[in-house]
Amino acid sequence: MKALRFYGGKDIRLEDIPEPAPGPKQVKIKVKWCGICGSDVHEYLAGPILIPVKRPHPLTGRQAPITGGHEFSGEIVAMGDNVAQFKVGDRVTVRPTMPCYQCYYCKKGQHIQCEMLGSIGGAADGAFADYVVAPVDNVYKLPDSVSYEAGSFVEPLACCVHAVKRGRMEPGAAVAVIGAGPIGLLTMQSALACGASDVFIFEFLPERMRLAKELGATEVINPKEGNPGKIIASLTSGRRADMVFECAGPGEALLLADTVCGRGGTIVEVGLMTEPFKFPFSNLFLREKSIITSQGYVDEFPAAIAFLGNGKVKCDPMMISSKVKVEDALEKGIKELTSERKLQHCKILVSPEL
Amino acid sequence: MKALRFYGGKDIRLEDIPEPAPGPKQVKIKVKWCGICGSDVHEYLAGPILIPVKRPHPLTGRQAPITGGHEFSGEIVAMGDNVAQFKVGDRVTVRPTMPCYQCYYCKKGQHIQCEMLGSIGGAADGAFADYVVAPVDNVYKLPDSVSYEAGSFVEPLACCVHAVKRGRMEPGAAVAVIGAGPIGLLTMQSALACGASDVFIFEFLPERMRLAKELGATEVINPKEGNPGKIIASLTSGRRADMVFECAGPGEALLLADTVCGRGGTIVEVGLMTEPFKFPFSNLFLREKSIITSQGYVDEFPAAIAFLGNGKVKCDPMMISSKVKVEDALEKGIKELTSERKLQHCKILVSPEL
Repeated sequence: MKALRFYGGKDIRLEDIPEPAPGPKQVKIKVKWCGICGSDVHEYLAGPILIPVKRPHPLTGRQAPITGGHEFSGEIVAMGDNVAQFKVGDRVTVRPTMPCYQCYYCKKGQHIQCEMLGSIGGAADGAFADYVVAPVDNVYKLPDSVSYEAGSFVEPLACCVHAVKRGRMEPGAAVAVIGAGPIGLLTMQSALACGASDVFIFEFLPERMRLAKELGATEVINPKEGNPGKIIASLTSGRRADMVFECAGPGEALLLADTVCGRGGTIVEVGLMTEPFKFPFSNLFLREKSIITSQGYVDEFPAAIAFLGNGKVKCDPMMISSKVKVEDALEKGIKELTSERKLQHCKILVSPEL
Repeated sequence: MKALRFYGGKDIRLEDIPEPAPGPKQVKIKVKWCGICGSDVHEYLAGPILIPVKRPHPLTGRQAPITGGHEFSGEIVAMGDNVAQFKVGDRVTVRPTMPCYQCYYCKKGQHIQCEMLGSIGGAADGAFADYVVAPVDNVYKLPDSVSYEAGSFVEPLACCVHAVKRGRMEPGAAVAVIGAGPIGLLTMQSALACGASDVFIFEFLPERMRLAKELGATEVINPKEGNPGKIIASLTSGRRADMVFECAGPGEALLLADTVCGRGGTIVEVGLMTEPFKFPFSNLFLREKSIITSQGYVDEFPAAIAFLGNGKVKCDPMMISSKVKVEDALEKGIKELTSERKLQHCKILVSPEL
């Protein structure tokens, strides 16, 4: 079968490899759609990061080359021994994280902190391919109301639902979201689905501003026009946002988050800030504000599937900016997202069936 | 009566003023002891900060000169009309904060965020004097097991209990505290009283290290000797601290807090950092750590009184480094805490009865 394999930084190859066979408690899945994640682009540009190159991963025993792709949906086509809860033909999505279930963090239920955490598309073969195998522990059925396209959004959406949970958002909260990329748009919808009264989204790219409005933002604010602090104050009877999700990344975005966050409020950092940044912590302290980081998920897959199924979160087709073949996933997908056109994209989906 | 009055930055005067008379729902208190807080020193050095100088405080109608002092204990000697719950002779302490009870934050129970918050010793006369009046809403009885000296520690201790609550510390948490000044020592004891399994305190001043050990620290670590990250890891089976209370203030202390905080952990910022600081936020993000700030209290006075009463928190006499008369409170108290001897002190108590 065809598979897009990560060898290391800037070394991704399309190869023909044998179809995988499901072992005990595993299923074989015919891939329908697999989204390209920012981490795939980061792995290509700055890797190896997650892909074990020098030595085998302690949990999976695998090392590069490894097939990428971890945001996917598909249909079960074969099963290994001891698989009771699924059958051939089931429409599914897969939680890629594979915790050890033995370390301090796993025992506490904080699997995302697992000391040996592996992942499908990172330490085991992923879904930029015709087929993928996954342990049954990781597989979730999709209801008929969730298209295969939408099914490939379950994984990033789970990150966003996790962010809402990490921030302990209260019902009726006035929420601000910094950045209307894929994570910002899914976080905005998650916050609304989880009981936010309003979501104010800060974005300056016209197409992303339009999409945010279409997907339910209460107001879309261009932070380059006017004074963001005064604008959010005018929209919240002066109190500003109770909770801010920073989904952009740069230090300036965290400063903006601080500006629009009200007293006693919480900033949830969802974007990855790579460089140390000079930050006015006294602003936080004097108004008793907090910065909570959110990374990945523990098990927010059922909630994410439910929100897609009942229409509280929409992604298909609005958030899909392009659909490409596995054969084109490097040139028209990953490399496209490193080009100057990257901000014109929302989510690029890859399929072996195109 | 004698009173130490704040006129503005570097302008504090000992004056003879009339004794205050309690209005309706107020009591008159004979001051026994009043601690000097870092904020009193800050008000002297860099003020006016809390003291309204240019216009009257919107809630109290008062402006400078205002008598300082907000960490105090005393005995009720007179009562205004409509005071049912206290009697002359009651031993009491006072929560200095006076919220408006009308704004968004007060209605939510977040009084410390009150948009008009006033305080005794800030926007109303405080306890660097023979007598002080206080609204009954702010007065708490001291049990016989709490000395008047210890009663003057209730206010700073309430800040520390609040910090533990803000951080949502879990039972059995491995805790680190950065800095063994008065707030660090009270926070350490609060964490132990609230269920921490161990508290590791980072301090380099020999006298403070000794005091931390005497007051119950599991281990006292000098961060200037050896590698703090490796030391805390060796004390926690490799996982480092679940929760870190940063009670020192400088940016370097926050970096140390980050170093000793384990995956998924929480840093509670209790110290006031005044300057913007370059911070590696990616360290937080990749290990899903958070920075929660804690300022003041809402109503942690009952808990603080209980912990002093049952001996879970100790302060008298170990944490009292000096006792001075009101007449000497400026020269031997506030100015002493701006001198090069400041780090030799723990808490300086002031009394009008000496």
